[in-house]
Amino acid sequence: MTLPKTPAPKNEPHLGFMARALELARRADGFTAPNPMVGAVIVRDGRIIGEGYHHRAGLPHAEIEALRSASEDVRGATMYVTLEPCCHHGRTPPCSQALVDAGIGTVFYAVGDDNPKVEGGGHRQLVEAGVTVFCGPFEDEARYLNRAFFHMITQKQPYVFAKYAMSLDGRIATRTGSSQWITGPAARAEAHRLRQSCDGILVGAGTVIADNPSLTTRLNDRETCAHPVRIILDSRGRCPLEARVFDPQLEGNTLVVAAPDFPSERRRILADRGVDVLTVPLHEQRLDVRALLPMLAERGMLAVMVEGGAEVLGSFAEHGLINEIWAFIGGKVIGGVSAPGPIGGLGLAEIGDAHAWYMDEVARVGEDVVLKARRRLG
Amino acid sequence: MTLPKTPAPKNEPHLGFMARALELARRADGFTAPNPMVGAVIVRDGRIIGEGYHHRAGLPHAEIEALRSASEDVRGATMYVTLEPCCHHGRTPPCSQALVDAGIGTVFYAVGDDNPKVEGGGHRQLVEAGVTVFCGPFEDEARYLNRAFFHMITQKQPYVFAKYAMSLDGRIATRTGSSQWITGPAARAEAHRLRQSCDGILVGAGTVIADNPSLTTRLNDRETCAHPVRIILDSRGRCPLEARVFDPQLEGNTLVVAAPDFPSERRRILADRGVDVLTVPLHEQRLDVRALLPMLAERGMLAVMVEGGAEVLGSFAEHGLINEIWAFIGGKVIGGVSAPGPIGGLGLAEIGDAHAWYMDEVARVGEDVVLKARRRLG
Repeated sequence: MTLPKTPAPKNEPHLGFMARALELARRADGFTAPNPMVGAVIVRDGRIIGEGYHHRAGLPHAEIEALRSASEDVRGATMYVTLEPCCHHGRTPPCSQALVDAGIGTVFYAVGDDNPKVEGGGHRQLVEAGVTVFCGPFEDEARYLNRAFFHMITQKQPYVFAKYAMSLDGRIATRTGSSQWITGPAARAEAHRLRQSCDGILVGAGTVIADNPSLTTRLNDRETCAHPVRIILDSRGRCPLEARVFDPQLEGNTLVVAAPDFPSERRRILADRGVDVLTVPLHEQRLDVRALLPMLAERGMLAVMVEGGAEVLGSFAEHGLINEIWAFIGGKVIGGVSAPGPIGGLGLAEIGDAHAWYMDEVARVGEDVVLKARRRLG
Repeated sequence: MTLPKTPAPKNEPHLGFMARALELARRADGFTAPNPMVGAVIVRDGRIIGEGYHHRAGLPHAEIEALRSASEDVRGATMYVTLEPCCHHGRTPPCSQALVDAGIGTVFYAVGDDNPKVEGGGHRQLVEAGVTVFCGPFEDEARYLNRAFFHMITQKQPYVFAKYAMSLDGRIATRTGSSQWITGPAARAEAHRLRQSCDGILVGAGTVIADNPSLTTRLNDRETCAHPVRIILDSRGRCPLEARVFDPQLEGNTLVVAAPDFPSERRRILADRGVDVLTVPLHEQRLDVRALLPMLAERGMLAVMVEGGAEVLGSFAEHGLINEIWAFIGGKVIGGVSAPGPIGGLGLAEIGDAHAWYMDEVARVGEDVVLKARRRLG
């Protein structure tokens, strides 16, 4: 049984302190999987006396970082934390106990932790120890920030972003395959920021053969351990071994997703270069991406970005596995009956069968536009 | 030689009065072709003492409407008008003379009239008669309001809007042709407002056969004379004679655009129903839309909206004849290699050959999004 929750008063200074905690949480965007992003602020008499965030799985939680950073005694102080404090022993001791031990008097947490190991338990432990506990403010923002984490808790598989760049008339390339560039530098930089937020970047063999991408985040300040994994769907081993993604010098790891009959000699060559090969069954002659996602979850990935090509996006779309679309739209007209659209495969037969998506964001980015749409639940 | 122009001071109250004049001009949106939309306000001592707008070709110009509406003597008053007053005898006497005769002391006009019959002449006539003349404010807004008119002056053909509704993945229908509805009621209402602004609504025979649309503006308050003309590209006479667009009871007029070998019997039947048939030459087995546009200009059309299908939009795109795109994007994913995009035809081979478009507007409309993009000059 969960305790009744007391909603936080939605006024300053609570809004300001929780906003700061959210800002701190975001600093670790892309680094925390399989953990959520969490930020925490300790306040006394309207002054921030400590703050911190969760940097990476295995390192201290945000609450502990904030306690350690405190410039003065925290007894009786208030903590604003973006997620319900944990109450279980994981790689680190439970935070709820640490808050009680430190003498924190009041806790505001933005959103409850849906993790069955935590759910309501952190809240209960605090209340039972005499801490005053409020839920909120900024529950929606905190849930959105960790939407991949919350998705994993309930679905046991990574949250899938589909990213593509298309023309005003919905084409990702001309009839001859020419596609560089449909969008400008600002849009491409934004796409790179999404790569950085994700734990895996997935493309098909066709994209590797056509574009020979390195699929890095091109950000120099990134710690090695947090490079998103390159995931190449290459059922039959069509990618040239000279492809950039197989270069052992390249930062981060590459994973090949193969069909059961993938050549064992090739598997050995790839292993020598540090490239793992994951085998998934076929479904209608294509790699069954439904079987793949739980395997990526086992490897600790919360968010995976599918960059294409159209057939790969079609596979994910067909099984309803795309959770969010980032569609970049460039100010160009391509035209042509045979110029490809972003999502291939068989596609829907009836519009009435289409799932509804919610447009989270509609914005200009440089001279282009980005639409960020989330698949509605249910 | 044009006179040097004195830019208007860009401050209140000038901004407010010219904004009011622009607002009045817009009231006649869709009614004035081949004339521009114009609004005028007469001000004395900071009070509006008269205002008016051009209602329709053949009716008085905005300046005259404003003079007639004046509640008191206008001698020495200031007029704000959205376009340089005309100085030539058209269907109505020149406005510049009327302003001088009325004793108007000062004129602010938002933008010069590019019409070679006017260009700078109205301005000169006013100055020579001792009127103080300023150009602006809101030149850009006034030019945008009448972009179809200005396009006609320089290009001698109507301004072409392409309108389509597509999914998040750039499809206008599923692989089976199912397309109702990709966007919601608010987006469809916005598209109807664009129809109302245009003088012609153009579709191909395929659209008539597939959807049997009536191509009306579905707005009850529209005067009969200003219904946009339905323009049907039907080179070979494929449309069923039972199609709604050929119904003599339907408000407004229908025009069929035919190839030279269009059956004469069919031409006669259509004529009996009041449907005109325009003959244009073929170009690569398709109606040559380059030849069509000047013919529509001769019929007094300033703005034509091309609604599809994809092949028709492809013809216009191929010849660089689309001036503005209104792309409505619905929160749905269709997918499928064979699901059509909005602009067909052959299309571009190289992205580098793509013309650049400027995104005028990026906005939500109901649950959907609209992108309004203008082809950049040059």
